[in-house]
Amino acid sequence: MRQVVYSVAMSLDGYIAGPRGESDWILIDPEIDFNAIFARFDVILMGRKTYEMTRTSQGGGSTPGIESYVFSRTLRQADCRGVIVSDNPSQTVSELRKRSGKDMWLFGGGQLFRSLLELGHVDRVSVAIIPVLLGGGLRLLPDSTRRAELQLVEHQTYAKTGTVSLEYAVT
Amino acid sequence: MRQVVYSVAMSLDGYIAGPRGESDWILIDPEIDFNAIFARFDVILMGRKTYEMTRTSQGGGSTPGIESYVFSRTLRQADCRGVIVSDNPSQTVSELRKRSGKDMWLFGGGQLFRSLLELGHVDRVSVAIIPVLLGGGLRLLPDSTRRAELQLVEHQTYAKTGTVSLEYAVT
Repeated sequence: MRQVVYSVAMSLDGYIAGPRGESDWILIDPEIDFNAIFARFDVILMGRKTYEMTRTSQGGGSTPGIESYVFSRTLRQADCRGVIVSDNPSQTVSELRKRSGKDMWLFGGGQLFRSLLELGHVDRVSVAIIPVLLGGGLRLLPDSTRRAELQLVEHQTYAKTGTVSLEYAVT
Repeated sequence: MRQVVYSVAMSLDGYIAGPRGESDWILIDPEIDFNAIFARFDVILMGRKTYEMTRTSQGGGSTPGIESYVFSRTLRQADCRGVIVSDNPSQTVSELRKRSGKDMWLFGGGQLFRSLLELGHVDRVSVAIIPVLLGGGLRLLPDSTRRAELQLVEHQTYAKTGTVSLEYAVT
Protein backbone atom coordinates (compact mmCIF):
# COMPACT_ATOMS: atom_id res chain seq x y z
CA MET A 1 0.00 0.00 0.00
CA ARG A 2 1.12 3.54 -0.66
CA GLN A 3 2.64 5.25 2.34
CA VAL A 4 2.55 8.69 3.88
CA VAL A 5 6.15 9.82 4.36
CA TYR A 6 7.09 12.87 6.44
CA SER A 7 10.28 13.77 4.62
CA VAL A 8 12.16 16.85 5.80
CA ALA A 9 15.57 18.35 6.47
CA MET A 10 16.26 18.81 10.17
CA SER A 11 18.98 20.46 12.26
CA LEU A 12 20.65 18.17 14.79
CA ASP A 13 18.65 19.86 17.54
CA GLY A 14 15.31 19.01 15.93
CA TYR A 15 14.23 22.06 13.91
CA ILE A 16 12.88 22.07 10.36
CA ALA A 17 13.18 25.85 10.02
CA GLY A 18 14.93 28.63 11.93
CA PRO A 19 13.27 31.05 14.37
CA ARG A 20 12.15 33.30 11.49
CA GLY A 21 11.41 30.43 9.11
CA GLU A 22 14.96 30.38 7.71
CA SER A 23 16.02 27.51 5.48
CA ASP A 24 19.46 28.89 4.53
CA TRP A 25 21.13 26.33 6.83
CA ILE A 26 19.99 23.43 4.65
CA LEU A 27 23.00 22.11 2.78
CA ILE A 28 22.33 20.51 -0.58
CA ASP A 29 24.67 17.56 -0.79
CA PRO A 30 25.65 16.92 -4.44
CA GLU A 31 25.42 13.17 -3.86
CA ILE A 32 21.76 13.17 -2.78
CA ASP A 33 19.62 11.92 -5.66
CA PHE A 34 16.75 14.40 -5.54
CA ASN A 35 15.25 12.99 -8.73
CA ALA A 36 14.88 9.64 -7.00
CA ILE A 37 13.29 11.35 -3.98
CA PHE A 38 10.75 13.19 -6.18
CA ALA A 39 10.06 10.07 -8.29
CA ARG A 40 8.86 8.24 -5.18
CA PHE A 41 5.84 10.51 -4.76
CA ASP A 42 2.77 11.54 -6.76
CA VAL A 43 1.00 13.39 -3.95
CA ILE A 44 2.22 16.23 -1.75
CA LEU A 45 0.44 17.03 1.53
CA MET A 46 1.05 20.30 3.30
CA GLY A 47 -0.33 22.62 5.92
CA ARG A 48 -1.38 26.18 5.24
CA LYS A 49 1.78 27.84 6.57
CA THR A 50 4.03 25.60 4.50
CA TYR A 51 1.89 26.29 1.45
CA GLU A 52 2.11 30.02 1.96
CA MET A 53 5.87 29.84 2.39
CA THR A 54 6.39 27.77 -0.77
CA ARG A 55 3.93 29.95 -2.68
CA THR A 56 5.96 33.03 -1.81
CA SER A 57 9.40 31.55 -2.37
CA GLN A 58 8.67 29.35 -5.37
CA GLY A 59 5.83 31.20 -7.08
CA GLY A 60 3.33 28.46 -6.25
CA GLY A 61 1.52 26.70 -9.05
CA SER A 62 1.42 23.02 -9.84
CA THR A 63 4.15 20.45 -10.35
CA PRO A 64 3.63 18.12 -13.33
CA GLY A 65 2.68 14.61 -12.27
CA ILE A 66 2.15 15.66 -8.65
CA GLU A 67 -1.17 16.38 -6.94
CA SER A 68 -0.74 18.87 -4.11
CA TYR A 69 -3.16 19.05 -1.18
CA VAL A 70 -3.25 21.97 1.24
CA PHE A 71 -5.07 21.59 4.55
CA SER A 72 -6.66 24.73 5.86
CA ARG A 73 -9.89 25.94 7.38
CA THR A 74 -9.45 29.46 6.00
CA LEU A 75 -8.06 29.23 2.47
CA ARG A 76 -10.58 29.24 -0.38
CA GLN A 77 -10.15 26.92 -3.34
CA ALA A 78 -10.71 29.79 -5.78
CA ASP A 79 -7.63 31.60 -4.42
CA CYS A 80 -5.30 28.63 -4.71
CA ARG A 81 -4.51 27.57 -8.24
CA GLY A 82 -2.69 24.32 -8.84
CA VAL A 83 -3.48 22.82 -5.43
CA ILE A 84 -6.48 21.11 -3.86
CA VAL A 85 -7.68 22.75 -0.65
CA SER A 86 -9.20 20.54 2.04
CA ASP A 87 -10.41 21.39 5.52
CA ASN A 88 -10.54 17.74 6.54
CA PRO A 89 -7.09 16.13 6.58
CA SER A 90 -8.34 12.91 8.17
CA GLN A 91 -10.97 12.23 5.49
CA THR A 92 -8.83 13.38 2.57
CA VAL A 93 -5.80 11.32 3.60
CA SER A 94 -7.99 8.27 4.33
CA GLU A 95 -9.41 8.45 0.82
CA LEU A 96 -6.00 8.98 -0.76
CA ARG A 97 -4.57 6.00 1.11
CA LYS A 98 -7.28 3.76 -0.35
CA ARG A 99 -6.48 4.79 -3.91
CA SER A 100 -3.57 3.15 -5.68
CA GLY A 101 -0.58 5.34 -6.42
CA LYS A 102 2.91 6.21 -5.37
CA ASP A 103 3.85 7.29 -1.86
CA MET A 104 2.57 10.60 -0.49
CA TRP A 105 4.99 13.27 0.65
CA LEU A 106 4.01 14.95 3.88
CA PHE A 107 6.03 18.02 3.03
CA GLY A 108 5.32 19.97 6.21
CA GLY A 109 4.95 21.47 8.55
CA GLY A 110 5.23 20.06 12.01
CA GLN A 111 1.63 20.79 13.00
CA LEU A 112 0.20 18.80 10.10
CA PHE A 113 2.64 16.02 10.96
CA ARG A 114 1.39 16.01 14.53
CA SER A 115 -2.27 15.87 13.44
CA LEU A 116 -1.72 13.07 10.94
CA LEU A 117 0.58 11.16 13.31
CA GLU A 118 -2.03 11.25 16.05
CA LEU A 119 -4.63 10.01 13.54
CA GLY A 120 -2.37 7.09 12.60
CA HIS A 121 -1.90 8.40 9.07
CA VAL A 122 1.90 8.64 8.96
CA ASP A 123 3.81 5.52 7.92
CA ARG A 124 7.36 6.80 7.58
CA VAL A 125 9.52 9.59 8.97
CA SER A 126 12.48 10.44 6.77
CA VAL A 127 14.90 13.07 8.05
CA ALA A 128 18.03 14.48 6.50
CA ILE A 129 20.04 15.63 9.50
CA ILE A 130 22.04 18.73 8.59
CA PRO A 131 25.19 19.30 10.71
CA VAL A 132 24.09 22.45 12.47
CA LEU A 133 22.57 23.49 15.80
CA LEU A 134 19.94 26.19 15.27
CA GLY A 135 19.07 26.74 18.93
CA GLY A 136 15.44 27.50 18.13
CA GLY A 137 12.85 27.50 15.36
CA LEU A 138 10.05 25.31 14.04
CA ARG A 139 10.22 21.89 15.59
CA LEU A 140 10.04 18.56 13.76
CA LEU A 141 7.07 17.63 15.95
CA PRO A 142 5.65 20.50 18.01
CA ASP A 143 4.04 19.66 21.37
CA SER A 144 2.62 16.21 20.86
CA THR A 145 1.21 14.54 23.92
CA ARG A 146 1.85 11.04 22.63
CA ARG A 147 5.09 9.19 22.25
CA ALA A 148 5.60 7.43 18.91
CA GLU A 149 7.90 4.44 18.63
CA LEU A 150 9.92 4.18 15.43
CA GLN A 151 11.91 1.53 13.63
CA LEU A 152 15.01 2.46 11.65
CA VAL A 153 14.60 1.13 8.11
CA GLU A 154 17.22 3.02 6.10
CA HIS A 155 20.30 5.10 6.74
CA GLN A 156 22.77 6.86 4.52
CA THR A 157 25.65 9.24 5.20
CA TYR A 158 26.78 11.86 2.69
CA ALA A 159 30.48 12.56 3.17
CA LYS A 160 30.76 15.92 1.42
CA THR A 161 28.37 17.79 3.69
CA GLY A 162 28.05 15.37 6.61
CA THR A 163 24.32 15.07 6.02
CA VAL A 164 22.84 11.90 7.56
CA SER A 165 19.60 10.55 6.08
CA LEU A 166 17.53 8.33 8.33
CA GLU A 167 14.22 6.73 7.49
CA TYR A 168 11.99 5.23 10.14
CA ALA A 169 8.75 3.28 10.06
CA VAL A 170 6.14 4.44 12.58
CA THR A 171 5.31 1.33 14.64
CA MET B 1 44.46 18.62 23.58
CA ARG B 2 41.73 17.09 25.68
CA GLN B 3 38.25 17.83 24.43
CA VAL B 4 34.91 18.68 25.99
CA VAL B 5 32.35 16.25 24.57
CA TYR B 6 28.60 16.73 25.02
CA SER B 7 27.59 13.07 24.87
CA VAL B 8 23.92 12.24 25.31
CA ALA B 9 21.06 10.06 24.13
CA MET B 10 18.44 11.98 22.15
CA SER B 11 15.02 11.24 20.71
CA LEU B 12 14.69 11.84 16.95
CA ASP B 13 12.80 15.04 17.72
CA GLY B 14 15.64 16.51 19.77
CA TYR B 15 14.88 15.74 23.43
CA ILE B 16 17.33 14.40 26.01
CA ALA B 17 14.56 13.68 28.56
CA GLY B 18 10.78 13.46 28.47
CA PRO B 19 8.36 16.15 29.69
CA ARG B 20 8.69 14.88 33.28
CA GLY B 21 12.40 14.06 33.00
CA GLU B 22 11.72 10.51 31.83
CA SER B 23 14.59 8.43 30.51
CA ASP B 24 12.68 5.15 30.11
CA TRP B 25 12.67 5.61 26.31
CA ILE B 26 16.45 5.21 26.12
CA LEU B 27 17.19 1.82 24.62
CA ILE B 28 20.45 0.20 25.67
CA ASP B 29 21.81 -1.47 22.57
CA PRO B 30 23.82 -4.58 23.52
CA GLU B 31 26.40 -3.77 20.85
CA ILE B 32 27.32 -0.35 22.22
CA ASP B 33 30.65 -0.58 24.03
CA PHE B 34 29.92 1.46 27.13
CA ASN B 35 33.28 0.54 28.66
CA ALA B 36 34.99 2.21 25.72
CA ILE B 37 32.77 5.27 26.15
CA PHE B 38 33.59 5.56 29.85
CA ALA B 39 37.32 4.91 29.25
CA ARG B 40 37.50 7.99 27.04
CA PHE B 41 36.83 10.35 29.95
CA ASP B 42 38.37 11.23 33.30
CA VAL B 43 36.21 14.28 34.03
CA ILE B 44 32.43 14.64 34.11
CA LEU B 45 30.84 18.09 33.88
CA MET B 46 27.20 18.59 34.81
CA GLY B 47 24.65 21.19 35.72
CA ARG B 48 22.79 21.28 39.01
CA LYS B 49 19.57 19.69 37.74
CA THR B 50 21.42 16.81 36.12
CA TYR B 51 23.41 16.31 39.32
CA GLU B 52 20.28 16.23 41.43
CA MET B 53 18.64 13.72 39.07
CA THR B 54 21.64 11.40 39.05
CA ARG B 55 22.07 11.78 42.81
CA THR B 56 18.49 10.64 43.34
CA SER B 57 18.48 7.83 40.81
CA GLN B 58 22.00 6.53 41.30
CA GLY B 59 22.71 7.33 44.92
CA GLY B 60 25.34 9.95 44.02
CA GLY B 61 28.86 9.59 45.25
CA SER B 62 32.04 9.37 43.26
CA THR B 63 33.11 7.18 40.36
CA PRO B 64 36.63 5.74 40.65
CA GLY B 65 39.06 7.41 38.25
CA ILE B 66 36.58 10.14 37.35
CA GLU B 67 36.47 13.69 38.73
CA SER B 68 32.93 15.08 38.68
CA TYR B 69 32.23 18.81 38.55
CA VAL B 70 28.82 20.29 39.29
CA PHE B 71 28.07 23.88 38.26
CA SER B 72 25.69 25.71 40.53
CA ARG B 73 25.31 29.04 42.26
CA THR B 74 23.26 27.54 45.09
CA LEU B 75 24.74 24.17 46.04
CA ARG B 76 27.25 24.11 48.88
CA GLN B 77 30.38 21.98 48.64
CA ALA B 78 29.77 20.59 52.13
CA ASP B 79 26.45 19.06 51.00
CA CYS B 80 27.87 17.37 47.91
CA ARG B 81 30.19 14.50 48.63
CA GLY B 82 32.20 12.99 45.82
CA VAL B 83 31.83 15.95 43.47
CA ILE B 84 33.49 19.34 43.10
CA VAL B 85 31.04 22.26 43.16
CA SER B 86 31.88 25.34 41.10
CA ASP B 87 29.89 28.51 40.49
CA ASN B 88 32.11 29.54 37.59
CA PRO B 89 31.88 27.11 34.65
CA SER B 90 33.95 29.32 32.34
CA GLN B 91 36.92 29.54 34.67
CA THR B 92 36.77 25.92 35.83
CA VAL B 93 36.50 24.51 32.31
CA SER B 94 39.27 26.83 31.06
CA GLU B 95 41.57 25.54 33.77
CA LEU B 96 40.65 21.91 33.15
CA ARG B 97 41.28 22.30 29.43
CA LYS B 98 44.83 23.51 30.12
CA ARG B 99 45.62 20.46 32.24
CA SER B 100 46.61 17.23 30.52
CA GLY B 101 44.17 14.37 30.78
CA LYS B 102 41.51 12.41 28.96
CA ASP B 103 38.49 13.99 27.35
CA MET B 104 35.81 15.61 29.52
CA TRP B 105 32.22 14.39 29.44
CA LEU B 106 29.66 17.16 29.36
CA PHE B 107 27.01 14.87 30.78
CA GLY B 108 24.16 17.38 30.81
CA GLY B 109 21.97 19.12 30.78
CA GLY B 110 21.06 21.33 27.88
CA GLN B 111 21.44 24.60 29.76
CA LEU B 112 25.03 23.87 30.72
CA PHE B 113 25.65 22.81 27.11
CA ARG B 114 24.28 26.13 25.90
CA SER B 115 26.45 28.13 28.34
CA LEU B 116 29.64 26.26 27.48
CA LEU B 117 28.87 26.26 23.74
CA GLU B 118 28.40 30.02 23.75
CA LEU B 119 31.72 30.36 25.63
CA GLY B 120 33.47 28.27 22.96
CA HIS B 121 34.17 25.48 25.45
CA VAL B 122 32.50 22.55 23.64
CA ASP B 123 34.61 20.67 21.09
CA ARG B 124 32.38 17.72 20.24
CA VAL B 125 28.68 16.84 20.22
CA SER B 126 28.03 13.11 20.36
CA VAL B 127 24.40 11.98 20.15
CA ALA B 128 22.91 8.51 20.24
CA ILE B 129 19.64 8.96 18.36
CA ILE B 130 17.00 6.67 19.84
CA PRO B 131 14.18 5.68 17.43
CA VAL B 132 11.34 7.46 19.20
CA LEU B 133 9.42 10.73 18.96
CA LEU B 134 8.78 12.14 22.44
CA GLY B 135 6.77 15.18 21.34
CA GLY B 136 8.11 17.29 24.22
CA GLY B 137 10.64 17.37 27.02
CA LEU B 138 14.09 18.72 27.76
CA ARG B 139 15.75 19.86 24.58
CA LEU B 140 19.29 19.01 23.41
CA LEU B 141 20.01 22.75 23.24
CA PRO B 142 17.36 24.96 24.83
CA ASP B 143 16.85 28.44 23.38
CA SER B 144 20.24 29.41 22.09
CA THR B 145 20.44 32.63 20.13
CA ARG B 146 23.46 31.54 18.14
CA ARG B 147 23.72 29.01 15.37
CA ALA B 148 26.60 26.52 15.67
CA GLU B 149 28.03 24.84 12.60
CA LEU B 150 29.10 21.23 13.02
CA GLN B 151 31.23 18.74 11.14
CA LEU B 152 30.33 15.06 11.15
CA VAL B 153 33.35 13.09 12.33
CA GLU B 154 31.95 9.66 13.26
CA HIS B 155 28.81 7.67 12.66
CA GLN B 156 27.68 4.22 13.68
CA THR B 157 24.39 2.38 13.37
CA TYR B 158 23.32 -0.31 15.82
CA ALA B 159 21.05 -2.78 14.07
CA LYS B 160 19.37 -4.39 17.09
CA THR B 161 17.74 -1.25 18.41
CA GLY B 162 18.12 1.10 15.43
CA THR B 163 20.17 3.50 17.53
CA VAL B 164 22.31 5.84 15.40
CA SER B 165 25.41 7.35 17.02
CA LEU B 166 26.71 10.54 15.45
CA GLU B 167 29.70 12.56 16.59
CA TYR B 168 30.29 16.09 15.38
CA ALA B 169 33.12 18.58 15.85
CA VAL B 170 31.99 22.11 16.69
CA THR B 171 33.53 24.32 14.00
